[in-house]
Amino acid sequence: MTTTTIPTSNGPTNPLVGALLTDLYQLTMTYAHWRIGKADDPAVFELFFRKNPFGGEYTIFCGLDECLKLLETFQFRDDDIAYLKSTPALKDCEDGFFEYLSKIHVTMAQHLRVSAVAEGTVVFPKEPLITIEGPLGIGHLLETTLLNLVNFPSLIATNASRMVLRAAPIPCIEFGLRRAQGPDGALSASKYSYVGGFVATSNVQAGKIFGIPIAGTHAHSYVQSFSSLDEAAGLTLVNKTTQTKEVFLDAVLEHRKRQHCTTTNDGELAAFVAYACAFPNACLCLVDTYDTLHSGIPNFVCVAKTLDDFGYVPKGVRLDSGDLVALSKGCKAAFDRVVASEPLRTAAFRNLTIVASNDINEATLQGFQLAQQHCLTAFGIGTNLVTCQAQPALGCVYKLVEYKGEPRIKLSEELNKVTLPGRKNIYRLYGKPDKDDTNGNPRPLLDYMTLADEDPPQDGDESILCRDPFRHQHRLRVFPIAAIPLNSVVYESGRVVIAANTTGLYKDDVVPSYLSRTQKYVTKQLSEEFHESVTRYKDLDPIPYDVMVSPKLYDHLHELWEKNAPVPERR
Amino acid sequence: MTTTTIPTSNGPTNPLVGALLTDLYQLTMTYAHWRIGKADDPAVFELFFRKNPFGGEYTIFCGLDECLKLLETFQFRDDDIAYLKSTPALKDCEDGFFEYLSKIHVTMAQHLRVSAVAEGTVVFPKEPLITIEGPLGIGHLLETTLLNLVNFPSLIATNASRMVLRAAPIPCIEFGLRRAQGPDGALSASKYSYVGGFVATSNVQAGKIFGIPIAGTHAHSYVQSFSSLDEAAGLTLVNKTTQTKEVFLDAVLEHRKRQHCTTTNDGELAAFVAYACAFPNACLCLVDTYDTLHSGIPNFVCVAKTLDDFGYVPKGVRLDSGDLVALSKGCKAAFDRVVASEPLRTAAFRNLTIVASNDINEATLQGFQLAQQHCLTAFGIGTNLVTCQAQPALGCVYKLVEYKGEPRIKLSEELNKVTLPGRKNIYRLYGKPDKDDTNGNPRPLLDYMTLADEDPPQDGDESILCRDPFRHQHRLRVFPIAAIPLNSVVYESGRVVIAANTTGLYKDDVVPSYLSRTQKYVTKQLSEEFHESVTRYKDLDPIPYDVMVSPKLYDHLHELWEKNAPVPERR
Repeated sequence: MTTTTIPTSNGPTNPLVGALLTDLYQLTMTYAHWRIGKADDPAVFELFFRKNPFGGEYTIFCGLDECLKLLETFQFRDDDIAYLKSTPALKDCEDGFFEYLSKIHVTMAQHLRVSAVAEGTVVFPKEPLITIEGPLGIGHLLETTLLNLVNFPSLIATNASRMVLRAAPIPCIEFGLRRAQGPDGALSASKYSYVGGFVATSNVQAGKIFGIPIAGTHAHSYVQSFSSLDEAAGLTLVNKTTQTKEVFLDAVLEHRKRQHCTTTNDGELAAFVAYACAFPNACLCLVDTYDTLHSGIPNFVCVAKTLDDFGYVPKGVRLDSGDLVALSKGCKAAFDRVVASEPLRTAAFRNLTIVASNDINEATLQGFQLAQQHCLTAFGIGTNLVTCQAQPALGCVYKLVEYKGEPRIKLSEELNKVTLPGRKNIYRLYGKPDKDDTNGNPRPLLDYMTLADEDPPQDGDESILCRDPFRHQHRLRVFPIAAIPLNSVVYESGRVVIAANTTGLYKDDVVPSYLSRTQKYVTKQLSEEFHESVTRYKDLDPIPYDVMVSPKLYDHLHELWEKNAPVPERR
Repeated sequence: MTTTTIPTSNGPTNPLVGALLTDLYQLTMTYAHWRIGKADDPAVFELFFRKNPFGGEYTIFCGLDECLKLLETFQFRDDDIAYLKSTPALKDCEDGFFEYLSKIHVTMAQHLRVSAVAEGTVVFPKEPLITIEGPLGIGHLLETTLLNLVNFPSLIATNASRMVLRAAPIPCIEFGLRRAQGPDGALSASKYSYVGGFVATSNVQAGKIFGIPIAGTHAHSYVQSFSSLDEAAGLTLVNKTTQTKEVFLDAVLEHRKRQHCTTTNDGELAAFVAYACAFPNACLCLVDTYDTLHSGIPNFVCVAKTLDDFGYVPKGVRLDSGDLVALSKGCKAAFDRVVASEPLRTAAFRNLTIVASNDINEATLQGFQLAQQHCLTAFGIGTNLVTCQAQPALGCVYKLVEYKGEPRIKLSEELNKVTLPGRKNIYRLYGKPDKDDTNGNPRPLLDYMTLADEDPPQDGDESILCRDPFRHQHRLRVFPIAAIPLNSVVYESGRVVIAANTTGLYKDDVVPSYLSRTQKYVTKQLSEEFHESVTRYKDLDPIPYDVMVSPKLYDHLHELWEKNAPVPERR
């Protein structure tokens, strides 16, 4: 394994992300620590979540690239310091504290080390996704920003990946910009939906910044802006068979006459004609402005036949309202009738796209997949994807697990909130391929956490005793054929360092390729490694994947618990 | 009414907001229109929503300030044009189109006029919040960005205002940065929660950018970082009564001894002592790290007594887990016991803050209000507020209502999706104060929409006949004492122009004051104008507020409907 050192980036995508994008209490805590000389004490924090989202049993870890960009450029600027000095909450702080803050980036470069799981990794509750080792004060100052940068990206990538699994093999396109939670709620959604397996976005800015393919055709307002055939009367298009410009509408009206269309809307037809002449190679029409089956589809068929006559391949239609299953069948039936009566049009009409884009979510897709009675060929997904309507927040937390070399535990009256103490490593233990897996992919047996100072588990040499961290009776002896470490150092000595054999290679000028590779990594894990029983829809009772711990970590946890948990008294 | 012209701003808060933050189809549609000379045709678009969020019966309109900043700085830059030319979807477009785009800001300055409702106005379904009058192409190019800039701000301000109503008179603080949908999901949440009535945010960046008060103390990790009393042993604080520095812990331990605390955690006590010495005037301690009632509260009481001895007023405690009602009573009981046994401590212990911050939402607050059995004095609200968990998207849409001077209608198989045609004005009709309203505030009777070329309704002179736009039988004769226009021109001739008598006065260097004034405007409407029956919690069946139309608009709508809706055929 070789490591590479990457030059300084320009910082996070959103320039408002920086040292001040944090909770005030990080500063007040740091001040209380700084005053008594604790701010530079060595500490270890872990970022993790407690529950998989969407009623599912897995999560895609994302946001690491933005976290690294933050680390590389983290600094309190002069105007930040001036603001902090002016705020009532900090006005009594000693001057030395503001000096400490203004030099924090130097301290980070000297003393901070960050480990993380690779971007796009399938992860599970309680696994440390990011581990921060360094001065206690820096641990505080990074907490909120890192959580913000991981929570939504991981949530959206997970949501997207679930929709992609439900829709497969039908491709999904992200259409959520207008309903997203703010401008970079939208940009993050575009970026991490792509990582989760979406093939394109409608968001042009995301296309430019991240190199994601962009898609889209026209809206209802476009169709409404036409009210008569006159508006498209003079439009010409090169007829590829004759190599001459011909008036397009005339040919369309011939087809309309032959089809006996009496109820189709003239404005709509003019709109389609204008669109076909503007984008003859990509003519996809929105057909539900007036009446899908009585106006939109007959109009589109006339235009598509004409494009076919002219030597172009029409692209298809989009449905944005009504009963999508029924309407898609209506569309397909109309196209099939053309093929049946005019076999020469098979190439043009057999593979027309039928995109659905009205209020689709994971449940809808699951319903479509089970019924398999629709004729849709692509899904455009907006609101439910980008706002993660089914669960709009992932609950990543960030906890102190070691302080001055001693493990720390956070107890709670809620057992699920108890933390696993100490700096840890995670390994994914793989077993032999399933018998029915023709690709012969090793399958993940479980994830195994050890304390960082334990030897890594040996591949295949011997069995490993695994324990459930909280259920004493739950033990397993595992015989893995491979034990792959999931976490590695990503930042050290003021620089981003990522092992070149991970998908997490980080370089500003290859962002598109970084995202594509991360997308492939996600797809590979979900389609080739993890069993469908882990990734399936919530109503089908997906099976939890085990995350277990080494006997040493188990003993550690319970020793600290006994020592720190007060025994409640009852009198 | 005087109008002011405001100088050019630096653009939207998030610099990634610009001409490219749009859906691709806006560009493809505009191209299809541009090719046939329609892109410069005069058109009118309206931005509105169809359903109030959160099961409620009102919405707060927000985001206008960012929309105006967008309009002032809207431009396709050279690198934007270069990207568009390079993208496969637009590669066949004629060069003239890209020239058209590169000069679009000049066209906007010449031909675009925008009207809007004032920021912070209580609004209702189908009311035009923003009206765009100008060339058709510009209408397309602004759509997605405006929707993005209005949807989340309005949603979050509405959500916040609902929580504030449920919590009243207890103040609410926004704590959502870590769980928000990305960095400016968080910044928008902080900004518009404040507009909705929240008193402060934990988000330091929001404090700096928007001038919002910031709040916060410490986290569990701070408490965990202390493990013994030695760590706080040497700390001194000036005793205000003796004016000498004294060792704080010694006095605390005296109190602890007297209280017979045997089960409190030493590390926690040390953490509180260090915090008290750092912030003696603002000592608010998180008390649930180990055990709220058996460790956190007794430890806090010892520290608070010592602060009191030293001449400082302790601030209070924060609860972040467990049964908030029961624990708050436990806290209050402990404080009351101090007051009962040591009456001289009344000033310090009678008004201690008890903040709750674990997973609070509108339903929880409603429950608290009904039961009235808790002892909480402030709410810190995060995830449910900032991600609008109960409904994470507002469905604002943007529709063509007039084209080349002719009204346009969008029909749909779903009646709720049919648009009201034509450029419109909205008026809020006020009636006499309710008899039981001691403040004598006029009360809104209903909102009344007219076509823009109708005369405004006359105040008090005569009755007004109002019609429901879709229910023929639903008519009302209204006798208002005032008819206040809700919409006014906000952008014209390339500049932002806002009437000085609205709350919407827009000036970059007074953003804090702009937000405060908007907050006051929201509060006034909800607490003094609209009846509780409109604003109450969903389970209490709030009553829909009427939005009606003039007879002329009604006739217009139905004429267009008859003309454009195809009669479905059945054979």
